[in-house]
Amino acid sequence: MAERTSFGSDNHAGAHEAVLRAVVEANSGDAVAYGDDEWTSRATAELRRAFGADGVFLVFNGSAANILGLSLLLRRHEAVICAESAHINTDECGAAERILGTKLLTVPAPDGKLTPEKIAEQLSARGDDHRAQPGAVAITQATELGTCYTLEELRKLGDFCRASDLGLYIDGARLANAAAFLDCSLADLAECADVLSFGGTKNGAIGAEAVVVMREDLAPDVPYLRKQQLQLASKMRFLAAQFLALTSDDLWRRNALHANEMAQRLAAGVRDVPGISVRYPVQSDAVFAQMDPRYLKELQREWFFYVWDERASIVRWMTAFDTAEADVDRFVTSVRNAAGRHHAG
Amino acid sequence: MAERTSFGSDNHAGAHEAVLRAVVEANSGDAVAYGDDEWTSRATAELRRAFGADGVFLVFNGSAANILGLSLLLRRHEAVICAESAHINTDECGAAERILGTKLLTVPAPDGKLTPEKIAEQLSARGDDHRAQPGAVAITQATELGTCYTLEELRKLGDFCRASDLGLYIDGARLANAAAFLDCSLADLAECADVLSFGGTKNGAIGAEAVVVMREDLAPDVPYLRKQQLQLASKMRFLAAQFLALTSDDLWRRNALHANEMAQRLAAGVRDVPGISVRYPVQSDAVFAQMDPRYLKELQREWFFYVWDERASIVRWMTAFDTAEADVDRFVTSVRNAAGRHHAG
Amino acid sequence: MAERTSFGSDNHAGAHEAVLRAVVEANSGDAVAYGDDEWTSRATAELRRAFGADGVFLVFNGSAANILGLSLLLRRHEAVICAESAHINTDECGAAERILGTKLLTVPAPDGKLTPEKIAEQLSARGDDHRAQPGAVAITQATELGTCYTLEELRKLGDFCRASDLGLYIDGARLANAAAFLDCSLADLAECADVLSFGGTKNGAIGAEAVVVMREDLAPDVPYLRKQQLQLASKMRFLAAQFLALTSDDLWRRNALHANEMAQRLAAGVRDVPGISVRYPVQSDAVFAQMDPRYLKELQREWFFYVWDERASIVRWMTAFDTAEADVDRFVTSVRNAAGRHHAG
Amino acid sequence: MAERTSFGSDNHAGAHEAVLRAVVEANSGDAVAYGDDEWTSRATAELRRAFGADGVFLVFNGSAANILGLSLLLRRHEAVICAESAHINTDECGAAERILGTKLLTVPAPDGKLTPEKIAEQLSARGDDHRAQPGAVAITQATELGTCYTLEELRKLGDFCRASDLGLYIDGARLANAAAFLDCSLADLAECADVLSFGGTKNGAIGAEAVVVMREDLAPDVPYLRKQQLQLASKMRFLAAQFLALTSDDLWRRNALHANEMAQRLAAGVRDVPGISVRYPVQSDAVFAQMDPRYLKELQREWFFYVWDERASIVRWMTAFDTAEADVDRFVTSVRNAAGRHHAG
Repeated sequence: MAERTSFGSDNHAGAHEAVLRAVVEANSGDAVAYGDDEWTSRATAELRRAFGADGVFLVFNGSAANILGLSLLLRRHEAVICAESAHINTDECGAAERILGTKLLTVPAPDGKLTPEKIAEQLSARGDDHRAQPGAVAITQATELGTCYTLEELRKLGDFCRASDLGLYIDGARLANAAAFLDCSLADLAECADVLSFGGTKNGAIGAEAVVVMREDLAPDVPYLRKQQLQLASKMRFLAAQFLALTSDDLWRRNALHANEMAQRLAAGVRDVPGISVRYPVQSDAVFAQMDPRYLKELQREWFFYVWDERASIVRWMTAFDTAEADVDRFVTSVRNAAGRHHAG
Repeated sequence: MAERTSFGSDNHAGAHEAVLRAVVEANSGDAVAYGDDEWTSRATAELRRAFGADGVFLVFNGSAANILGLSLLLRRHEAVICAESAHINTDECGAAERILGTKLLTVPAPDGKLTPEKIAEQLSARGDDHRAQPGAVAITQATELGTCYTLEELRKLGDFCRASDLGLYIDGARLANAAAFLDCSLADLAECADVLSFGGTKNGAIGAEAVVVMREDLAPDVPYLRKQQLQLASKMRFLAAQFLALTSDDLWRRNALHANEMAQRLAAGVRDVPGISVRYPVQSDAVFAQMDPRYLKELQREWFFYVWDERASIVRWMTAFDTAEADVDRFVTSVRNAAGRHHAG
Repeated sequence: MAERTSFGSDNHAGAHEAVLRAVVEANSGDAVAYGDDEWTSRATAELRRAFGADGVFLVFNGSAANILGLSLLLRRHEAVICAESAHINTDECGAAERILGTKLLTVPAPDGKLTPEKIAEQLSARGDDHRAQPGAVAITQATELGTCYTLEELRKLGDFCRASDLGLYIDGARLANAAAFLDCSLADLAECADVLSFGGTKNGAIGAEAVVVMREDLAPDVPYLRKQQLQLASKMRFLAAQFLALTSDDLWRRNALHANEMAQRLAAGVRDVPGISVRYPVQSDAVFAQMDPRYLKELQREWFFYVWDERASIVRWMTAFDTAEADVDRFVTSVRNAAGRHHAG
Repeated sequence: MAERTSFGSDNHAGAHEAVLRAVVEANSGDAVAYGDDEWTSRATAELRRAFGADGVFLVFNGSAANILGLSLLLRRHEAVICAESAHINTDECGAAERILGTKLLTVPAPDGKLTPEKIAEQLSARGDDHRAQPGAVAITQATELGTCYTLEELRKLGDFCRASDLGLYIDGARLANAAAFLDCSLADLAECADVLSFGGTKNGAIGAEAVVVMREDLAPDVPYLRKQQLQLASKMRFLAAQFLALTSDDLWRRNALHANEMAQRLAAGVRDVPGISVRYPVQSDAVFAQMDPRYLKELQREWFFYVWDERASIVRWMTAFDTAEADVDRFVTSVRNAAGRHHAG
């Protein structure tokens, strides 16, 4: 593998070799299409077990998992409460509004995390037919800012939602990273939720996500909604095989743990550099840092990463399952060199 | 590879080994996500060239390609004219209505093919604001009934649509089979259309389809519509690699030609069997046959295939890129044996 | 009032003077907007009583009532079974598909009426995630062809739908005409249904329709759906006043009965005219007639009416609450004269 | 007319007697339905002239006008930039998201008014297919906070939108009040816009709004979109008659001017009361006031009005075309009395 020069995103990484191997092995003769095959049976059974779920359904990508998951929790007219920084609000090109026709009731959440109190504020207009009526809450775990809800926070959110007649959806594009950080099971994370997604893509898959349905009454509609939402894979065994690889010996956890450790290493490496300040607790595979704009310009000549907030000069660095310690160390050296040149002057 | 026991569908086949090899080879280090990678550049350039297209965009499956393609051709209020047997009408769970909000104005088409005359009948309500207004025509090539439009028929449809201010979309889930049958280029097939799809999945891909945009003015909206319609692959190189394999030395054509030949062999093998009558010209990889219901029951014990029309006792047998002559011959023997037992009696 | 020269539609008529009077009388000082006023309270209570309904909600027009009513009966992914000739299919510009995102599974119904048998045929694809899944049945009473379902037919449809887990919606744009024809109560007509509409507009209102909800569990969502579907009137008292007039001393029934009688008179007057044949039983305020195209041309010089089927030379003549016997008689004379001239020659 | 006891909303008022008279007069014999009548011809011609518009289309209410208007300006995937306080964002129960499928990109606007600078901030994500792409800007005139854009501000917004390839829509539910306040013509207000609404309901109509289309290329789609959006009135003459009354001798302006004057009188009457502070410039028919919560409670025993912001103790008082000076004076006395009792203590 080439030396890494990107901390752009965990989906800039390729696929884990075990995933590719599983895909190649699944190519053995005919199999009934659309999920009625043994790979899909095994993979979804494995995931149902891991989550304590009622039903598991494979889809192509994370936005699709979010839309499918939310569509199970909303009455026809209902809206979704989410953080302003939620991926469904900022990075899905308005898919929630377009495909579900739902309004997002967004809440400022400086660390990317919702709380019962913030959700409660959105409930004051209940019963007023001029106002969009919240039907579900969507949170992200790990969040878009790299933070994780604790199990206690999740429990409180779950209790609040149930008591408030709100469905609870978890965007789990990086659920693996949260489970690794919190050192808990997937079932521990899922317990509070009605529906959640479990992301394979950012964890080493070619491209595969699972919609995990925790409530028995919700599962029957999924096949039709998945088909309408353009997510029914014909040769589904090739999605399933990816999850078989990731669930084998908890490869997903090892991949996530490694990415998290690389993020910690990166953060540790830059934390004392003058002109740089790490933002948000580093609890998954992302490091956000506010940095002197001059370093930024210089670093971008050699390295690929995204500027998260142009005005505040905040960047996002992401690690992945295949980030090497040496990659991190070379990057930290680059940062230190840039800082050295500019800070001296 | 195991002996084939299914003539259920061309997507019961696995992936061509060259496709898998290309996917594995694409797993080399980091690549920018969402299509800004060299594999996607090369694959879409290759397809643009092959089709004489303005833009090519990769998506996950055939229904998605249809919805994305049609969304480019419809004003917000417009409807689609299609055959009753069109996949978008019968087999996409109402996705066109749900995702596009469009009405399908369906036309009976006994051989699966629309004609200018049939389309013209749907235009009488133009200008009446109570009636759904047609904005595009959708045809399938090869059709759902295994037939192909000739180049002359396509030309006439294209001329009629242009003259009638109707967009023309081709569902090309099996476009390769049509090109192989008609012994023409992809550009020949595409010339009449505004937008079309080019199916990789049924041709030997793991799962990949291309939306091919022939008109320059239509391409700019595609990226946003693709994202909203949940079809933006993050590790797009793995979709692109599949098309790189299929376009290399026109593997797509060889795959399609072989599948077509196997369908011809199958049809030829059963054509003179008493109690069986082959329906529709066999012009791609499908054979439809009306058969004595007693044979049907017996055959289904050993072989997997779909009953197309329960009442009329019509079945559909599909071949694929990897169907072996021996598979076909064993199947034909089974048919003949079944017929022999029952016809004798 | 000027002499009538139109048999174009029952909505070419103006408003009944009692309706106008009620509207003027409702203009007395302030009233809370959006339905929280005494006129709306009284009108909806009156209608709830007449229908034995759980909830009644006023909207602006018939298409809106249909969409709102159906939206209560469909799960997010479900389709509607209706007659090909249903207003929602032919005359609402694709609103069901656009606003509800639902597919209409249409059934040929030569007399405009569905039967359990016809509905049953649409249920064979249940459970197949490629096929649109029916969730509700929509019928029209009186139908678009001027016919009425008998109470027995309604009962059977209701039983079948309930047993088949299908909601039953009645488009009652001309429900008054059906109640008058069948000499039954509105509650008799409503009993089989989950939701229905009750049309004021064609019965003498300025413009007002009621959505009548028979099932307790369906009513809570209506206010939000009505608002989203753009049907919440701010000065709702002026819609309510119209229904107060129409329900006062059953004015709606007298209006409908009169219109029906005028249709009978018209049909009786032309039935024996050579070159004319009345189609469908005349059971409401519409007369369909196949006629010599030469009469048609001549009649249209003096009279306004619609050609229903150009090719078959079938016209539709509609009466209204304010059609005078003399109007009908003059029209019949015109028809007879036209026939006389052409038939003689 | 009873003494007014409500300053709740301008739509708590009834209809102007000239409007009712016009409706009654329009009830003269038959008229072709769906707008092909002389009243509609005359009313829309009159409005086209007053606005210098290309097309005018009548609908039932203000939310519907907004949705129809915006639907003309958005490509299928596009979003709308609007103020957080915009009616389409806060008071239409998510209709924009549900019916148009569009995302609202909201901008904080303390006085209810957008500026080119605020709009510009929403354009930074243009070209990024993960982000919703703005296609139109929606402003309200007069705003939801009772303020008015000056003609100069409108001109700048229009120039900015045109230069930025953004459509400009004006929600003109209270456009009459703005024209009265600014002492300008409707055409002056409309000049900057691509589409706008002109509200009749809050100006003395029973219920009627006009969608005013300024650009020739936009009008052809309106009839179909209006029908799909459930806004095609069958007896349209009764909507048209209301606008004929309002445009006759500029009744709309007199009604608006009077309402504005009553708001000024009210504001003047309470401005020096201790414990009360008038918020926002009073530029239409609304007065917002922050007041001691104790007065508020006491006032609400006798008078009806809405608390705009519970926490900040801000109320909204609205006048109407039929608010009498004596109504205002009695109300001001009540306010002063309440203040007197509590402030003395």
